Amino acid sequence: MTGDRSTPLESLETPALVIDVARLERNLERWQRYCDEAGLANRPHVKTHKSIEIARRQVALGARGITCQKLGEAEVMVEAGIDDVLIPYNLLGNGKLERLSSLLGRARISVSVDDVRLLVGLAAAARTAGRELEVSVECDTGMGRAGVQSPEAAVELAAVIARADGLRFGGFVTYPAPAGAAAFLQAAVDGARACGLEVPVVSAGGTPGMWHARELMPTVTEYRAGTYAFHDRATVAAGAAGLEDVAVTVHATVASRPTRDRAIVDAGSKALAYDPGPGSGHGLILEAQGSVIETLTEEHGHVRVCAPDRLELGDRVRIVPNHVCVVSNLFDEFWVARDGAAVGRWPVAARGRSQ
Amino acid sequence: MTGDRSTPLESLETPALVIDVARLERNLERWQRYCDEAGLANRPHVKTHKSIEIARRQVALGARGITCQKLGEAEVMVEAGIDDVLIPYNLLGNGKLERLSSLLGRARISVSVDDVRLLVGLAAAARTAGRELEVSVECDTGMGRAGVQSPEAAVELAAVIARADGLRFGGFVTYPAPAGAAAFLQAAVDGARACGLEVPVVSAGGTPGMWHARELMPTVTEYRAGTYAFHDRATVAAGAAGLEDVAVTVHATVASRPTRDRAIVDAGSKALAYDPGPGSGHGLILEAQGSVIETLTEEHGHVRVCAPDRLELGDRVRIVPNHVCVVSNLFDEFWVARDGAAVGRWPVAARGRSQ
Repeated sequence: MTGDRSTPLESLETPALVIDVARLERNLERWQRYCDEAGLANRPHVKTHKSIEIARRQVALGARGITCQKLGEAEVMVEAGIDDVLIPYNLLGNGKLERLSSLLGRARISVSVDDVRLLVGLAAAARTAGRELEVSVECDTGMGRAGVQSPEAAVELAAVIARADGLRFGGFVTYPAPAGAAAFLQAAVDGARACGLEVPVVSAGGTPGMWHARELMPTVTEYRAGTYAFHDRATVAAGAAGLEDVAVTVHATVASRPTRDRAIVDAGSKALAYDPGPGSGHGLILEAQGSVIETLTEEHGHVRVCAPDRLELGDRVRIVPNHVCVVSNLFDEFWVARDGAAVGRWPVAARGRSQ
Repeated sequence: MTGDRSTPLESLETPALVIDVARLERNLERWQRYCDEAGLANRPHVKTHKSIEIARRQVALGARGITCQKLGEAEVMVEAGIDDVLIPYNLLGNGKLERLSSLLGRARISVSVDDVRLLVGLAAAARTAGRELEVSVECDTGMGRAGVQSPEAAVELAAVIARADGLRFGGFVTYPAPAGAAAFLQAAVDGARACGLEVPVVSAGGTPGMWHARELMPTVTEYRAGTYAFHDRATVAAGAAGLEDVAVTVHATVASRPTRDRAIVDAGSKALAYDPGPGSGHGLILEAQGSVIETLTEEHGHVRVCAPDRLELGDRVRIVPNHVCVVSNLFDEFWVARDGAAVGRWPVAARGRSQ
């Protein structure tokens, strides 16, 4: 943490990204305890915070390792000493394979794939590194994103991985885990075992469903949640947390009061991100919960003020983002608040590392 | 420009933000010529590119100065030697006023306001700097954002500015300039003159309407456009440019082909931004213009592939963003391409400077 003296939150320049560190710690501990009690491996997703300090806390509390969505994030985390990273993303192209190879020489790295054509490149990267690469099969269990489309396809790909020189079959990965995911995954596990394959890990993820992770066991053995560290409007709406658990808010200032029912805050789409959330509006103003952030332009949040909210010119407000993961990525640093004062700053170390 | 050797575009790590510098230069020159021929002051908005290199080109071509939406952007630009900056944003709070004062000692800075209560702070900042501060009145001529609501209110505020110690009335500012804006602004100008005030500048803005700026003259004397440097799906849809004028694309790779009609590209909302655009989809894939980027998750662009588009695994594509200004803000640097090769990099120097 950058060693600042304690600073009143009201004096932070807005828009500011502020962590309530007591809530963060409580969120991290509560989930780790759930995983420990359930016997579920916790592999938190760092895309939410992109912060070395938070990743280290997650590992110290007992996480199995971390999840990174991109190589660039993994590079930052390995450089910081995190030594077990899953990248559940198809990696292809010479540049990325060289970077993977370099990482593989420095830490335990595993990846996932959904296409047999990717294996040649991965095997070459492993060969260059002189280390075996663990490769899981990504399964599309309903998200409609990447992933093989059936348990049969998953088993077929698993078998090819298991036979490939330099690669080791790591298991099955999905995100999130909608209804039917456990059946899909169990069918894949059964199929793999019928082919004589061991299935070391079956990994699901997603904060909205995290408190139901136990119901996916014993099929699922590992869980990847990211947003649980901070929570946001989406995970509160999903019932995974209460507003009192939200550990990150964007502090903003009412910069204009052009009409009786319109306020402009100095946080727009470059601070709150336009990504959709539950219900109406682009974030929840904690001090004006009946009012609505109707739209965002780049540096303006357009608020329809509803009585009895006031939102006077110059008022400072705290906004719960719709989707905090994209918001962290817009800032260079978090302000770390404890007992109502900012006590330091943490860099968003992997901000912008989308490559 | 960072002195890289020429690099084939196909070897850039994706997602990458790439400028076609010949198109950029053509866009800058064409608009400057229009302004010169019309006798309109050009004050480009740097929020689009946040790049020192591009701001310098704009000034070298004849821009009157630049526009910054936030103090943080202005600080970067003044540090780089740009000496005339308009910040059309209400500035309030001790921190921002101190920063304004500091900037005012180093460059010609002007601001706008929409509320008389802001003047005390601005006057104090000017006093501290020992320099007069030029303050314009922001007018809401239909955007429904910040700004005074009537020409009468604009004149009233102008008169208070003109009488305030340390402040100089700068004129009227609006964004954009919808139908009726010219009448609003002319009424404000007439009212101000009737009170004995000079109106040095009347400033409108917006790339979509830029080629109609002449029609706002003689009321409007200055124009602030930002996106014109790059163009994007929105400004092409508005008729301000053709696809052949788009100077920035996000280069991406097809990272997964899970089904016959679904492709996943490695550019999601952390590379393309979720901000809405014209028509359907979250960007236009130049190599697959009949296909649709149906949704974005953080690191995945979900594409519905429509024949005859192919989008094979590993294909590289160029995506025209819906709204390029928020996309620049997600990257640390632009790759600069000329004649089909990357010849260097420019930092997005004011990226994240939303404070």
